[in-house]
Amino acid sequence: MTLQTTKTHIVHGGTLRYLKHDSAATGTPMTLSVFVPGGEGPFPVLIWLSGLTCTEDNFTTKAGAYQAAAEHGVIIVAPDTSPRGPDLKGEGVADDPAYDLGQGAGFYLDATQAPWAAHFRMESYVTGELIDLIDAEFPTTGVRSISGHSMGGHGALTLALKHPDLFRSVSAFAPICSPTRCPWGEKAFTAYLGEDRAAWDRHDAAKLIAAGAAPGVYDDILIDQGDADSFLTDQLKPELLQAAADAAGQKVTIRLQPGYDHSYFFMTSFIADHIAFHAERLKA
Amino acid sequence: MTLQTTKTHIVHGGTLRYLKHDSAATGTPMTLSVFVPGGEGPFPVLIWLSGLTCTEDNFTTKAGAYQAAAEHGVIIVAPDTSPRGPDLKGEGVADDPAYDLGQGAGFYLDATQAPWAAHFRMESYVTGELIDLIDAEFPTTGVRSISGHSMGGHGALTLALKHPDLFRSVSAFAPICSPTRCPWGEKAFTAYLGEDRAAWDRHDAAKLIAAGAAPGVYDDILIDQGDADSFLTDQLKPELLQAAADAAGQKVTIRLQPGYDHSYFFMTSFIADHIAFHAERLKA
Repeated sequence: MTLQTTKTHIVHGGTLRYLKHDSAATGTPMTLSVFVPGGEGPFPVLIWLSGLTCTEDNFTTKAGAYQAAAEHGVIIVAPDTSPRGPDLKGEGVADDPAYDLGQGAGFYLDATQAPWAAHFRMESYVTGELIDLIDAEFPTTGVRSISGHSMGGHGALTLALKHPDLFRSVSAFAPICSPTRCPWGEKAFTAYLGEDRAAWDRHDAAKLIAAGAAPGVYDDILIDQGDADSFLTDQLKPELLQAAADAAGQKVTIRLQPGYDHSYFFMTSFIADHIAFHAERLKA
Repeated sequence: MTLQTTKTHIVHGGTLRYLKHDSAATGTPMTLSVFVPGGEGPFPVLIWLSGLTCTEDNFTTKAGAYQAAAEHGVIIVAPDTSPRGPDLKGEGVADDPAYDLGQGAGFYLDATQAPWAAHFRMESYVTGELIDLIDAEFPTTGVRSISGHSMGGHGALTLALKHPDLFRSVSAFAPICSPTRCPWGEKAFTAYLGEDRAAWDRHDAAKLIAAGAAPGVYDDILIDQGDADSFLTDQLKPELLQAAADAAGQKVTIRLQPGYDHSYFFMTSFIADHIAFHAERLKA
């Protein structure tokens, strides 16, 4: 197996594996977790993309997603958020103290600028190598959906809009809806993509929808957003996605959840709804 | 409020608080988390005792308990596993590298031996000060149950058996069933209670049941145990508890769960069953 299992746990009757492999896309080792429900497969797949600073472990241990995944018979794949390694920029405080650039902050795009371009190729990784590996090594039906949180919500939305042939459905929790118009995105895109903002728009969910991406592909896009999320106004800006969707005729269901913040306590409260949303479409 | 709130999150419609307070029982600051369901109280309480090395955070972030707690209308209180502080023995690798003695390893008893006796008084803390604080500061019905994992399963069982007036029901995940007869318990009890084993038996669940503790109080004791738990044979020994219960006429339901290990992935798979078990008895 190309994938090396580092840990295995039984959870909710399924098998959860922590895995690592040498990635051709990033030129580094990559880590991930994969949950396979119990019982007879094959199963459809939900790819989960995590947010800034996360590894695959945050979602795996804190989201409480596997009960619903077991009930609906869905494989969940949670990759790391970036390549990592001692030679990569962005590792550790001595090199780059930022939590929002470099390691742990891949933004699910292929960087074009030095020193990032050699390894920070998360779009190619997720939409190519990762999908191929999962379909080769696990009992999948060959269909999949995608979801994620914050930077990972941005990743889920943009990858689904750019690659509508790959995904049946997309949802997000507290996504960065328009990274070209918020500090996190402007910083990351300047570093990864360069100063020319014309190259940025195809990595911006609101602008992709405004430009008519994936027309008629997704019957709905489910987004949960806590109204007590401290990043809501400055970084996440769901109103920009809603406006673009309204103008383009793309249905988007943005649920503003009262009192909820940006944490995994928010996500665990609604993850079962998202898995049900995807399962319905994955099995249609 | 005697309790100082350090963090607040909304989760599954309820309010989760991380709290700290100066404990009279331990003479140190103590930390805990408290989940209060949404809606009208008052609510009964489930006290959760964690295992070796844990703080209140492990259960709070990983157990996935709050959906069931919200559904059943149960407050969940998760204290830390020991007093902590720079002057306390057992802190850090330089002082005491052991994970199974001192800080993070209070064993839910009152130590009688130096240097532990001054602060390591977790039995007094949980059964006195903590319960009083919770009933004073939160909308409780004044009735409560207790559960826990591993060392915390030992704590739940022994405290429930020693203080049957305080608890309506007790359950455990992978508890240390007879600490007087396993390496973890023998090490801790020698340090906390001294060489005289006669003082140990009242902190041993199997021996308490054998001695007829809490006769007729608990209609059943629910225990889940993974059969792939690496500590099962040497440290946990549920067969000793089962034998004592059978001899004493105490009903104990020990569910051996195939393939499950000692991790939170095991606990999150069955925590809803335990909350339902306690809710039924708390509301009877």
